Amino acid sequence: MRENAANPAAEPIRVTVWGENVHEQKHQAVRDIYPNGMHNCIADGLREAGSDVFDVRTATLQEPEHGLTKNVLEKTDVLIWWGHAAHKEVADEIVNRVQARVLEGMGLIVLHSGHFSKIFKRLMGTPCSLCWREAGEKERVWVCNPGHPIAQGIDRFFEIANEEMYGEPFAIPAPDEQIFISWFEGGEVFRSGCTWKRGNGKIFYFRPGHEVYPTYHDENVKRVLKNAARWARPEGSRWIDSCPNIPVEKAPEHIAAKGGSVH
Amino acid sequence: MRENAANPAAEPIRVTVWGENVHEQKHQAVRDIYPNGMHNCIADGLREAGSDVFDVRTATLQEPEHGLTKNVLEKTDVLIWWGHAAHKEVADEIVNRVQARVLEGMGLIVLHSGHFSKIFKRLMGTPCSLCWREAGEKERVWVCNPGHPIAQGIDRFFEIANEEMYGEPFAIPAPDEQIFISWFEGGEVFRSGCTWKRGNGKIFYFRPGHEVYPTYHDENVKRVLKNAARWARPEGSRWIDSCPNIPVEKAPEHIAAKGGSVH
Amino acid sequence: MRENAANPAAEPIRVTVWGENVHEQKHQAVRDIYPNGMHNCIADGLREAGSDVFDVRTATLQEPEHGLTKNVLEKTDVLIWWGHAAHKEVADEIVNRVQARVLEGMGLIVLHSGHFSKIFKRLMGTPCSLCWREAGEKERVWVCNPGHPIAQGIDRFFEIANEEMYGEPFAIPAPDEQIFISWFEGGEVFRSGCTWKRGNGKIFYFRPGHEVYPTYHDENVKRVLKNAARWARPEGSRWIDSCPNIPVEKAPEHIAAKGGSVH
Amino acid sequence: MRENAANPAAEPIRVTVWGENVHEQKHQAVRDIYPNGMHNCIADGLREAGSDVFDVRTATLQEPEHGLTKNVLEKTDVLIWWGHAAHKEVADEIVNRVQARVLEGMGLIVLHSGHFSKIFKRLMGTPCSLCWREAGEKERVWVCNPGHPIAQGIDRFFEIANEEMYGEPFAIPAPDEQIFISWFEGGEVFRSGCTWKRGNGKIFYFRPGHEVYPTYHDENVKRVLKNAARWARPEGSRWIDSCPNIPVEKAPEHIAAKGGSVH
Repeated sequence: MRENAANPAAEPIRVTVWGENVHEQKHQAVRDIYPNGMHNCIADGLREAGSDVFDVRTATLQEPEHGLTKNVLEKTDVLIWWGHAAHKEVADEIVNRVQARVLEGMGLIVLHSGHFSKIFKRLMGTPCSLCWREAGEKERVWVCNPGHPIAQGIDRFFEIANEEMYGEPFAIPAPDEQIFISWFEGGEVFRSGCTWKRGNGKIFYFRPGHEVYPTYHDENVKRVLKNAARWARPEGSRWIDSCPNIPVEKAPEHIAAKGGSVH
Repeated sequence: MRENAANPAAEPIRVTVWGENVHEQKHQAVRDIYPNGMHNCIADGLREAGSDVFDVRTATLQEPEHGLTKNVLEKTDVLIWWGHAAHKEVADEIVNRVQARVLEGMGLIVLHSGHFSKIFKRLMGTPCSLCWREAGEKERVWVCNPGHPIAQGIDRFFEIANEEMYGEPFAIPAPDEQIFISWFEGGEVFRSGCTWKRGNGKIFYFRPGHEVYPTYHDENVKRVLKNAARWARPEGSRWIDSCPNIPVEKAPEHIAAKGGSVH
Repeated sequence: MRENAANPAAEPIRVTVWGENVHEQKHQAVRDIYPNGMHNCIADGLREAGSDVFDVRTATLQEPEHGLTKNVLEKTDVLIWWGHAAHKEVADEIVNRVQARVLEGMGLIVLHSGHFSKIFKRLMGTPCSLCWREAGEKERVWVCNPGHPIAQGIDRFFEIANEEMYGEPFAIPAPDEQIFISWFEGGEVFRSGCTWKRGNGKIFYFRPGHEVYPTYHDENVKRVLKNAARWARPEGSRWIDSCPNIPVEKAPEHIAAKGGSVH
Repeated sequence: MRENAANPAAEPIRVTVWGENVHEQKHQAVRDIYPNGMHNCIADGLREAGSDVFDVRTATLQEPEHGLTKNVLEKTDVLIWWGHAAHKEVADEIVNRVQARVLEGMGLIVLHSGHFSKIFKRLMGTPCSLCWREAGEKERVWVCNPGHPIAQGIDRFFEIANEEMYGEPFAIPAPDEQIFISWFEGGEVFRSGCTWKRGNGKIFYFRPGHEVYPTYHDENVKRVLKNAARWARPEGSRWIDSCPNIPVEKAPEHIAAKGGSVH
């Protein structure tokens, strides 16, 4: 993290948008909506904020190390994750690496079907299961905390005309903050915007974004992602994970005099 | 979970004490303190409550499936975990199985060096690191919540004459409840008793218990473990993890009429 | 709290149902639904569990000390609260008394318009505001945690044919656990079942129950209340609030030698 | 909150340091340490960061409206609170006003004996009691989360040579984050740095600061306060508390057709 990371204005927030990039290659219907891939559409949405706010790159499953090399992650303040069909193809080594960076302080925004990604399940410790239906129904995303940075510029709710339904129960640990809850035309509800902190990393799960709908072209969705990327930026210094032995000789004299353990 | 699990008085709580059982085999100093192994000492402490309260069995690393077969876990209400030297030898398949049972509702009590066990790190999603020193120093375990079931019968604090020191920072998600914090003679502090809930499973981490000290013979420690095993028992029904598709035909008519997705 | 409070089977849980008892006196429409008052309907629902499970009494605003004398609260394990039109008429002294008992360990179940009661706002520390509409619309109450004791015996959701709508944002601290979320026919969502712990007291807020609908006659609502009253029972011992001075002479010698402060 | 509040670099954070200002008037020993009052010492510590970072003013109990007029609070991003001997003299109307501003988004930093202030107890909903001893003993303040913004620039721990002891149990709701825990020479521990969020306001409790010791001249304490004031700044927009009725005519047609309630 840079010296001035506490001052988000000084330098742009470095965002990496990770896309699984599978549906776009296989389905013409998805390609029609996202001709450059979903990851590029998401990245372009962030870029609308200006290059002084975000410095955005993309990475995909198919690149070496899925595009998430040590060097890339070192230079990433916030990672956005979209995956669906190929969660199992993500190498455990890369998952370990991303988890470690989150704990150090990198923000993580998990989108839609990313609820079942290895990295999200790893950080939650729970199955992250839910119920679902694909019927292109209307979703109303309600704001639970109108003053939260992630909800800035959003009215009481916004609607997405056609989306996949996700319904409760959502098998997650209790969120630190509930930002959005969705109402679905078919009768279900879902905790669509949730935050947690793990180590120093801020995590935001955001529900919308099924691949056959133009969700990431939606103005409200783009705004939420911009807000969330700003919110999730590192604020402190890195937490370097370690388990140090504190030498006896540094302990007060009456302790040191006892000497070490027999073990 | 049994029909009457909501009534803990009707049948004894079925506890499985899992011991790594490595130090006892290698070190005479440990064997002198725990001649039948640490797991049996912990189990005997629980048995003092009477067979109408707890039905206690043990399991160890060396047994087939580490003694944690599907059948054993099915019949376990609360699992107690002590491990230290051989965390890596615990098979991932067994870790998956234990995690699934916790999410269904099985209680889990993680002891001392179990902070680095695969199962604890899996459920926390964080490194669970800490700092430490072996100098046989005095530990004072303070009660942060005097009315909590886990602290029943414990005075404002209790002392352990000689223990390994564990110090902050403890790399865990914020606990749901802080039950104990330890003061060490050498100048450190540690969040020694923490609770979390994951799925339906109650989790309690309890710090004391280094293998070269007679900690599990201590009356206060035994009392905390009895309290915790009672607290951690399943209270509801199983959460059977699934991610069901809700068929379109069960949705309201105007949704069903839209038909399924193109995908 | 009784000696055997940790064993909920040994003696019935003592529940006091507090009713504001104003609408029933003023409106025939309410009296038609609740001829003996809402509080008695709620109490009768609990009594269906049997006198070995619950020992139920009622109290109302109009009684001396609103029926919540020291003696009554001493003998109450769980207090259920329904109020709407006369929150301001509840004496601050009684609110203080109830708050103190919650902190000691008494469970509190706050119903519907009780979100604006003095006692709920006091314990939350927030305005507890929400948005609302009276249109007799359909409410679907979804289970977010299928294995939770409060959700036992409830299917994935239950419906109430006609209810007042409550919508987000609900100005509460983040709940410890989200048990229910409601979907409304008119397009809103609401966190309908939330838990918190304050001191040793378990708190459950449950949304349904507008006075002009027969909600407390509903089988699912009655089941939730029975579950919640069982869940909210005291589990530990009382937390007697105090701020004790720890005498210098009880501190270790090198501290005591410093003598007291100049102040 | 200003338009650019999301960008803390653009304009200084407006901090109001509120001091009870009673001990300084009565005790020469306190006046010797804080000749301009404790509030001015705290304010001066913040000012060291530069006028581009903080715009600091003070307010005291003795001023009209305790110096916390609507206008002052409107222009306050972060309020720091020190009180001890005169909590009861703070007018309830001012407490209401401060609470409302916290919920809107104003940060609040509560110091030392402010644990018993009306505003802190109001926001917590609990007694906030603790145990204590005045013996001028050594306090070691440990960092529980090394990467947290509030802990920036602090080593693993820092020491204060002479302080009043505060000990557990501290009767607070479970903190969102545990930043510091103190170790005392006399054998106690205390959760010395805790955060919560209420509405949009960030709250930080920080233990050190007994009036007879020069604690607010300490470099580490000053650093923590600077960090905390930066952390607690408003990040989003105001949450304007309300409980709006959503008119039936804005509901979907099939709802509106039902007409209003009989009530």
